[in-house]
Amino acid sequence: MAMQININNTTEEEAEEKKQPEKVQTSQLRQDLVTGDWVVIATGRAKRPDSFGDFERIKDDKGIEKCIFEDPVASGQQPDVLIYTDNNNEWTLRVFPNLFPTVSPAPAMKPTTEGPYFSMPGVGFHELVVTRDHFKQLALMNVLEVAEVFDAYQDRYLDLMNKKNVNFIAIFHNHGKEAGASIAHPHSQIMAIPVIAPYPKSELDGAESYHRHNKHCVYCVMSEFESDFKERVVFENDEFIAFCPFASRSAFEVWVMPKKHSPYFERITDTEKIKLAEVFSKGLNAIYKALNDPPYNFYINTSPCDGKDYPHFHWHIEILPHTSIWAGFELETGVEISTIEPEVAAEYLRKQVSN
Amino acid sequence: MAMQININNTTEEEAEEKKQPEKVQTSQLRQDLVTGDWVVIATGRAKRPDSFGDFERIKDDKGIEKCIFEDPVASGQQPDVLIYTDNNNEWTLRVFPNLFPTVSPAPAMKPTTEGPYFSMPGVGFHELVVTRDHFKQLALMNVLEVAEVFDAYQDRYLDLMNKKNVNFIAIFHNHGKEAGASIAHPHSQIMAIPVIAPYPKSELDGAESYHRHNKHCVYCVMSEFESDFKERVVFENDEFIAFCPFASRSAFEVWVMPKKHSPYFERITDTEKIKLAEVFSKGLNAIYKALNDPPYNFYINTSPCDGKDYPHFHWHIEILPHTSIWAGFELETGVEISTIEPEVAAEYLRKQVSN
Repeated sequence: MAMQININNTTEEEAEEKKQPEKVQTSQLRQDLVTGDWVVIATGRAKRPDSFGDFERIKDDKGIEKCIFEDPVASGQQPDVLIYTDNNNEWTLRVFPNLFPTVSPAPAMKPTTEGPYFSMPGVGFHELVVTRDHFKQLALMNVLEVAEVFDAYQDRYLDLMNKKNVNFIAIFHNHGKEAGASIAHPHSQIMAIPVIAPYPKSELDGAESYHRHNKHCVYCVMSEFESDFKERVVFENDEFIAFCPFASRSAFEVWVMPKKHSPYFERITDTEKIKLAEVFSKGLNAIYKALNDPPYNFYINTSPCDGKDYPHFHWHIEILPHTSIWAGFELETGVEISTIEPEVAAEYLRKQVSN
Repeated sequence: MAMQININNTTEEEAEEKKQPEKVQTSQLRQDLVTGDWVVIATGRAKRPDSFGDFERIKDDKGIEKCIFEDPVASGQQPDVLIYTDNNNEWTLRVFPNLFPTVSPAPAMKPTTEGPYFSMPGVGFHELVVTRDHFKQLALMNVLEVAEVFDAYQDRYLDLMNKKNVNFIAIFHNHGKEAGASIAHPHSQIMAIPVIAPYPKSELDGAESYHRHNKHCVYCVMSEFESDFKERVVFENDEFIAFCPFASRSAFEVWVMPKKHSPYFERITDTEKIKLAEVFSKGLNAIYKALNDPPYNFYINTSPCDGKDYPHFHWHIEILPHTSIWAGFELETGVEISTIEPEVAAEYLRKQVSN
């Protein structure tokens, strides 16, 4: 769709390592001895800048103040691994490694034990996907602009999935300080890691188990039921559906799902990407209007890239507006408390779509 | 320890139902079709007051302004189910049902299906444990005051565990608005529910599986290793140990654990409670000093009360200072990113203990 320069598709692992700034301290993946879940100990990230204040502004060559992501080169970001440009050869989107990565490329993955415990270096890739306009968040972009962001996710996924030690790729977006964004400029993050994380594992296991018992994909069952039932649908076209899930974990949570069974996001076609962008945009913009520009997170749940097949999984996007705080009950139990019925939330969101 | 009036130990289910205010809407437990996890849809809670402002202050009979928990009777809280008094017959701690409960007693638990989905009424008990002093948070209490709080937890646990439809009891404490406390006055919450929540289930399963493979309790292995290794210990006595877990999920996370294998918190003796209170107080106070009165959550992880035996579980308390926000990566993966090594955090906390 956009003119694309995929700069680093042929770069060697070694070259990528050299690009990491020397000051970066390698992080650690540590495994919980009881549950098998992983945590990341990433001490370098505590020092990363927080540009919600204005101390991170820089001047361009005409002396105009910009934020660090409006002119990533001048602000000393790492070289692009992908850049999209428009017909005037102006950049519209770029992807570059995070200066303060949670995981970093490393020559080898040496596991360590300490008494009964197990850890390994925080090996992987942590990249930023930056769109140009400082003030245009994803909820305000048009369909083609959103499709270009999904283009970039797919391009980088297809490159990273074949790297050494990469078995799972998280693609996510934080909007607003309360949702964990440390830089106000719109940006998504891609983190390619060696382990399959506990939440995706739980969804993969659940989809597998549902298929074993019911001979159907659980997500296909869900999207067909929702499309017929209508009450929780926010918007749908012939290929994708946006709905508030029956067991929403947060108020105004929205899932965007392909109607056709498909385990792998990275195999999406250009035509499908436009259909996806339409449904995703309507859903996100409805949240924006309904909650008056709330902080939000969204992420893509897709199959791991560990060389195995996941025929019963079904990729989708989960959008979580940040409407409450995880307190003691949620932290203890993992049971979330939502304060609005998903049916009521969906009705309200549908009104925003039609306005 | 304290003089105790355990008011409702003999009350019938029906009588307790009547005590619920009529306006409370019954909540719903809904099951995620993929993972089997539960969420709570509790629309009534959206209307609960937030007394961090001062609009929730009331006047006592001498015209002195108090917060709603300093004089729960005058502020229209529900009748106490437990009250502790001192030698002057002044109350020191009281427990009463939450006016805005997440779950409520109901005569029967009728499951409902909707297409492929499953839900049930939000049946259960939701109580508040309130200590008297508005300004004395748990981190500042002395050992006997803390032991009295654990007394109350145990008393209520022993009563609630035998109620109909109660299979799991969550005991937790939120301190500070950022940690989800909606009332500034120090209070803990007890929530007795019909389902075993996903996080406890994951720990129960993990402990069971570790025992099957290693013939040891995983928590005993952990507490023995930590006590020998010393680097992550914050404080210990002969019965309990407070340490920063190897795979800490948040910076300055502290676990407090009995050294003797014990699956059930509710079987703790009075002598053990004093030992627990000593170690817990040192740990929590060290966090208070190290992070300058941070928001925090803590909760007790203990075996379910569903009539089954859990010989391989080992109850403990997890204290989580609220130092960062769960953003897209954590929400997508369940992998948490901690910005300080647990060993460094523990060293810093130990210094606070000795000061």
